[in-house]
Amino acid sequence: MHSLSTAIVGASGYSGVELTRAISRHPRLRAVALFSDRWAGEAAGDRLPLSGPAAALRYRALAEAPELSAEVAFLATPAEVSLDLAQKLLARGVRVVDLSGAFRLEESAAYPRWYGFEHSAPDLLAVARYGLPELARAKLAGAKLITNPGCYATATAMALAPLLRSGLASTDGIAVAAMSGVSGAGRKASEEYSFCEVDEDLRAYRLGRHQHVPEIEQTVARFAGRCGPISFTPHLVPIRRGILATCTLRLVPGAAASELVRAYEQAFAGEPFVRVLAAERVAVKDVVRTNRVHLGVAVDARAGVAVAVSAIDNLVKGAAGQAVQALNAAMGWDETLGLDLLGG
Amino acid sequence: MHSLSTAIVGASGYSGVELTRAISRHPRLRAVALFSDRWAGEAAGDRLPLSGPAAALRYRALAEAPELSAEVAFLATPAEVSLDLAQKLLARGVRVVDLSGAFRLEESAAYPRWYGFEHSAPDLLAVARYGLPELARAKLAGAKLITNPGCYATATAMALAPLLRSGLASTDGIAVAAMSGVSGAGRKASEEYSFCEVDEDLRAYRLGRHQHVPEIEQTVARFAGRCGPISFTPHLVPIRRGILATCTLRLVPGAAASELVRAYEQAFAGEPFVRVLAAERVAVKDVVRTNRVHLGVAVDARAGVAVAVSAIDNLVKGAAGQAVQALNAAMGWDETLGLDLLGG
Amino acid sequence: MHSLSTAIVGASGYSGVELTRAISRHPRLRAVALFSDRWAGEAAGDRLPLSGPAAALRYRALAEAPELSAEVAFLATPAEVSLDLAQKLLARGVRVVDLSGAFRLEESAAYPRWYGFEHSAPDLLAVARYGLPELARAKLAGAKLITNPGCYATATAMALAPLLRSGLASTDGIAVAAMSGVSGAGRKASEEYSFCEVDEDLRAYRLGRHQHVPEIEQTVARFAGRCGPISFTPHLVPIRRGILATCTLRLVPGAAASELVRAYEQAFAGEPFVRVLAAERVAVKDVVRTNRVHLGVAVDARAGVAVAVSAIDNLVKGAAGQAVQALNAAMGWDETLGLDLLGG
Amino acid sequence: MHSLSTAIVGASGYSGVELTRAISRHPRLRAVALFSDRWAGEAAGDRLPLSGPAAALRYRALAEAPELSAEVAFLATPAEVSLDLAQKLLARGVRVVDLSGAFRLEESAAYPRWYGFEHSAPDLLAVARYGLPELARAKLAGAKLITNPGCYATATAMALAPLLRSGLASTDGIAVAAMSGVSGAGRKASEEYSFCEVDEDLRAYRLGRHQHVPEIEQTVARFAGRCGPISFTPHLVPIRRGILATCTLRLVPGAAASELVRAYEQAFAGEPFVRVLAAERVAVKDVVRTNRVHLGVAVDARAGVAVAVSAIDNLVKGAAGQAVQALNAAMGWDETLGLDLLGG
Repeated sequence: MHSLSTAIVGASGYSGVELTRAISRHPRLRAVALFSDRWAGEAAGDRLPLSGPAAALRYRALAEAPELSAEVAFLATPAEVSLDLAQKLLARGVRVVDLSGAFRLEESAAYPRWYGFEHSAPDLLAVARYGLPELARAKLAGAKLITNPGCYATATAMALAPLLRSGLASTDGIAVAAMSGVSGAGRKASEEYSFCEVDEDLRAYRLGRHQHVPEIEQTVARFAGRCGPISFTPHLVPIRRGILATCTLRLVPGAAASELVRAYEQAFAGEPFVRVLAAERVAVKDVVRTNRVHLGVAVDARAGVAVAVSAIDNLVKGAAGQAVQALNAAMGWDETLGLDLLGG
Repeated sequence: MHSLSTAIVGASGYSGVELTRAISRHPRLRAVALFSDRWAGEAAGDRLPLSGPAAALRYRALAEAPELSAEVAFLATPAEVSLDLAQKLLARGVRVVDLSGAFRLEESAAYPRWYGFEHSAPDLLAVARYGLPELARAKLAGAKLITNPGCYATATAMALAPLLRSGLASTDGIAVAAMSGVSGAGRKASEEYSFCEVDEDLRAYRLGRHQHVPEIEQTVARFAGRCGPISFTPHLVPIRRGILATCTLRLVPGAAASELVRAYEQAFAGEPFVRVLAAERVAVKDVVRTNRVHLGVAVDARAGVAVAVSAIDNLVKGAAGQAVQALNAAMGWDETLGLDLLGG
Repeated sequence: MHSLSTAIVGASGYSGVELTRAISRHPRLRAVALFSDRWAGEAAGDRLPLSGPAAALRYRALAEAPELSAEVAFLATPAEVSLDLAQKLLARGVRVVDLSGAFRLEESAAYPRWYGFEHSAPDLLAVARYGLPELARAKLAGAKLITNPGCYATATAMALAPLLRSGLASTDGIAVAAMSGVSGAGRKASEEYSFCEVDEDLRAYRLGRHQHVPEIEQTVARFAGRCGPISFTPHLVPIRRGILATCTLRLVPGAAASELVRAYEQAFAGEPFVRVLAAERVAVKDVVRTNRVHLGVAVDARAGVAVAVSAIDNLVKGAAGQAVQALNAAMGWDETLGLDLLGG
Repeated sequence: MHSLSTAIVGASGYSGVELTRAISRHPRLRAVALFSDRWAGEAAGDRLPLSGPAAALRYRALAEAPELSAEVAFLATPAEVSLDLAQKLLARGVRVVDLSGAFRLEESAAYPRWYGFEHSAPDLLAVARYGLPELARAKLAGAKLITNPGCYATATAMALAPLLRSGLASTDGIAVAAMSGVSGAGRKASEEYSFCEVDEDLRAYRLGRHQHVPEIEQTVARFAGRCGPISFTPHLVPIRRGILATCTLRLVPGAAASELVRAYEQAFAGEPFVRVLAAERVAVKDVVRTNRVHLGVAVDARAGVAVAVSAIDNLVKGAAGQAVQALNAAMGWDETLGLDLLGG
């Protein structure tokens, strides 16, 4: 069976490591090049518990990435790096899956506000295909440039989109409180994310201004027709990986809990990675180290709201796993290839 | 200076331990009896790093508590136990500070729904004074029965009440996501709260049905005039102590962030335990092991909401510390007595 | 390819869950029955992120285990349960891999002291084969009863045995300090192992009397010829899984660090799960969720000692993974089958 | 009552923060200056939950410290900074308590090996008084330069010294495995100590070459007459604060456990901060946030060893608390002043 030669750029970050794992067990992908300045010169097998050919690959300097030879490249690099690199690689015929935010928003005009830079390649925004198969599978077939969703965006959009499409909840007045493990901040030297500062602490950050906000609204609107401006409050919690998103929506009068559950079940029927549970059974520990999304919704008739809860692993379904799933979809393969992860 | 003889019933639970600490350093309280079946017969100084007379006290069986001799008794017992014990102690002239939910709701009719039992002493609900000085100080003077607020209720009501009283936010459509450390579940043998089950996990629980909901609404309404039904979602996070409450409120058109901040500053001017900060500076680690409340509010004009964030230590301002503060208020003492806690 | 029908008894404990994962991905084993009172009646796929046939299996009551029909049974049950069950299953022709201590010691007389019970089947102790392939592979071929090593015993014996066999370190005066994650205590309701009691704490326990002590001495002596009485101090640390064993040995005068490293490399040449590293590079996080053992040794010439450090995952190489590896060895299969775990 | 004007240099590190807390509640010390580049210009009360005059102090740049005006200065600075600063301050008549290793070793020749620098003020080594009152109180009276012990050294020397002095254990062949919380590494931006790298991990470091080794040997020898070279292995564990030291010593034949316990009780009779417990009751959580030392010793007659376990808070008895205690001793005050800490 032919396998695609695959490169990973930014292979030593937390998402890059998960990509390496996933690709090393993927039957149709074959890692041929790993780029990381941090581990340049070292063998992958000395850093990760890999076996097989991937273990022997040596990390190469990021500066060599524009010249890489591979059929597919996964970019786990900052948005500005991805912007530049994606253009060069596409020009050379390399299929690109980008894990940064560089190509996630359809409007280039939104970049300065949410990402803090002017977008240098607005034409690519029209080319990029959004890699969230459960909500946007149709457009992925054959994609040359896949823009991988944000972690918070994945957890939130999957919880909201089916409920809004069903018409059971208002498209306005949505409040989301999401909690993320610390790996969401990336691997880096920082006092702020040191063990002593994070352990036993909780706090909210980037209130109302997280860069995933426009992505969530755009994704939900594409799927459900409309999405009002959501209020989104992310929180940092002392776990290594995992996201829990708690979404409060105004219920349409008379909407029943069973109807909301049915909206999920219909939207995600046959999806191998989605499970619908009682909201109080949704827990990060059950999805961590898998590509799964666990979803639940409860009705609070007194307050006139539905509360939807979703859990993912920010590094798998929120990053590397979804990137592989989206490539699988683009190639017309079984979407679970490389992703038979058993958690723990 | 005369000091009041003081008993603690339920002295080995997490709140009971904090009460013991606070009372042992309180210049006007003198611990004379500690009741706990778990540690019955042991000396307090063998369980806690106490010095002075409190260290020599031996824990006594709970069954002896109805006969205790003290001027004040703090009850850190389950609601059903408190219900019974408070009546007996009050009848014997003991001033009672109850940390359970037994006397928190003014309507006895609300107990079956929220607490799961019929209230056996509805007359005491009219006698009980709500021990949240910052929001209800006036009625505390001379109180014989103080009902200590719930931990979530304290964090949430203090964040909401000033904003609603100011008229800057709607009394309807409030969504609260609150996160608590595991000590909120009490000290007990349980698989659910074992280290391996809780560590590295996040989940929501009791969606829309937590027993602090009616208490929050009642407390806010007393202070602010009105409070619509709030949506309240508590979460369990892997920290030992601390609560962060994130409250999303619909803004009245044109309300400015500075006005919201001013509402806090006016409501809490001169309060020794309250600090108003930028919302992103509110963090559990800064209040833990103190009786402080840190509060902040941000405006998301795009979404038309204010997001208020508050942090407390669930065992101090959310339990033992506030109980001492409320007694201080009832006695007309400086409210900080026994509560000069330096955190860490 | 023929696969062996396989049962797991005690399938909901932490080791049982890891067994279920490993067997579900093993190409020569086919789970046919799972026994657990805790989850009786539930489908495995509702508890674990499994796919394929294992997901559909329903947990059955432990009381049915003696009547199970399978070619192999893994017992993740308390020693007393295993003692009884192993005899019954062996009598019915089922191959047994027992993860308890029931069959680990060759002398039945040692059981009362170390395990607290009289051994009821001393004849089986001669039949049982010790399932630590790297140190005792020769006797595993065709084994009908495999006794799986203890977690501490695995980490410690693998660190000590090659050094003693080399003659570079004294067989007397060995001091071991080992640290374990909390899952080593099993899944159970307990105040002692609750999050609030364990988090942010460290303590030693069972000083000099842990039941793995005689097993370590016996295993090292078999491999190296002799092992004096070791001093063994286990510690509980707030991590979910993993063991680090730090072993201090008296050096034979003139022994060099390079010789000690060579002793490891010779003893473990070609072993797929063993890696020899600088002692300061040995870390639990690199072996967790794999069947690996990481080993290192440093020489402190000033103090005349060697300090060997080993790390394993107590639930994988210390339990379920090793059990599968040992069965693989007994069957003459590639020992890595089912164990291509990528960690994380 | 006269109080000494007090400065803290390095006030924003973890030890500096604990010093600030302790001094703010000390009846005979009055904070007048706090130096920290990190927080320069900010008020102490904005960083820490202080009340009273200390809260109003503003942090000043470290460069101003040599010109400080105070009767006492606590230096929580790196050894090289302390070396220089202590000389300047002593010359200006300021009493100095130094928390670094700059003055801990009596032999200047030992500095290059253990600290990596040539000592620039060897004459001060003879002037410095070692600030571990329980083992070296006699020499502290009136000290102008107090060198505060290392955290590991405190925990280890207190566990070893009485046993060696008693003659019940050999002065040779001592193996120590010590575990420290992450705050021992200080507050700094570092990938190595980031939450994601430390959480759920365990590892040994600086095997046989930690700079506290000569300090331990020197301290024990002063107290007990002799101390052979000890083997010392420190470990990093995922807790914020606390040290557990497990010390294995060869027993003199016939030595009984009760005699060892008595050696502790005699050595530490009347000490307000020392408690002798069963070794399995010694736990970090009971000493954290106090100046206490908990000690226990068990005998393993089979292996011919005693295992002593001690627990301290590395930031209190291992740093700031002990510094205050030693100053109290030097001034002839009650040693518990400022240290009535209730833990938690």
